[in-house]
Amino acid sequence: MASPTSTPEQEQIRRLITTWTEAVTAKDCDRIVADYADDILLYDAIPPYKTVGKAAIRKAWADCMPHFPEAFLVELRDLAVHAAGDVGVAHFLCHFKSLSGEHPCGMTWMRITEGYRRSQGRWQVIHSHVSVPFNPMNSQAWMIGDPDVVTLPDYGKCP
Amino acid sequence: MASPTSTPEQEQIRRLITTWTEAVTAKDCDRIVADYADDILLYDAIPPYKTVGKAAIRKAWADCMPHFPEAFLVELRDLAVHAAGDVGVAHFLCHFKSLSGEHPCGMTWMRITEGYRRSQGRWQVIHSHVSVPFNPMNSQAWMIGDPDVVTLPDYGKCP
Repeated sequence: MASPTSTPEQEQIRRLITTWTEAVTAKDCDRIVADYADDILLYDAIPPYKTVGKAAIRKAWADCMPHFPEAFLVELRDLAVHAAGDVGVAHFLCHFKSLSGEHPCGMTWMRITEGYRRSQGRWQVIHSHVSVPFNPMNSQAWMIGDPDVVTLPDYGKCP
Repeated sequence: MASPTSTPEQEQIRRLITTWTEAVTAKDCDRIVADYADDILLYDAIPPYKTVGKAAIRKAWADCMPHFPEAFLVELRDLAVHAAGDVGVAHFLCHFKSLSGEHPCGMTWMRITEGYRRSQGRWQVIHSHVSVPFNPMNSQAWMIGDPDVVTLPDYGKCP
């Protein structure tokens, strides 16, 4: 949905994000990477720490799909998009919501930051960074159960 | 150092990153956040999952500094900067190298993605995302010891 203050560039980038969301929900790996630049750099939430190139990311999604719930929704919130000329950047929170019972893939929201470039009139994702933080006291991932509740470990116990 | 193919915007953003690096090395909290927009959104490597605003981030750095080594260097690599008009995005790897003995802060490289906006002729950081991945098999942070070695858990053992 267009925001009254959005520029055409912002709207075009929002559409890329919506398309990606729909593609993940449909488990359509080709469409998931359809707007990725060939040399995109992915910093994913899980290892490897980087994946380079649209083809490699498509393979990672295809390998990953059997471990997703049979049916799920992709939820997005806190989206902000900045764009000027042929460069854009967006950040948002993303969550997989299982529709077929409790599933570990839904245990956390993820933070996503993406970079975009317009080339020959077409916006593409050139970089994607997906993560959750980790607790430095025990190196465990610090899951984001409810983005409205901002928690932290007891750093007061630090040496 | 200027790259022969860099635009002025890219060079200006590179200078922001260099200034930040020097400020962290000097433990100068005011300078660390000097180029941050007042309403910057930080997705940090450690909790909380988000910190909003320059003042809050300055406080987090000040609270954190006692836990850093007495002397250390900030190392950067794999920097890429994209900019057009008044918007920019950069990504790089960053590492704290202790000069005063082994220290946990140096156990991993971190992935950093930043968004920038130029306002009244001045570039500012509007968003910063810092992370390492986590191993979904045990939820432990997957440290990046050597960025030239891209490792991953044995996902073949997934159920």
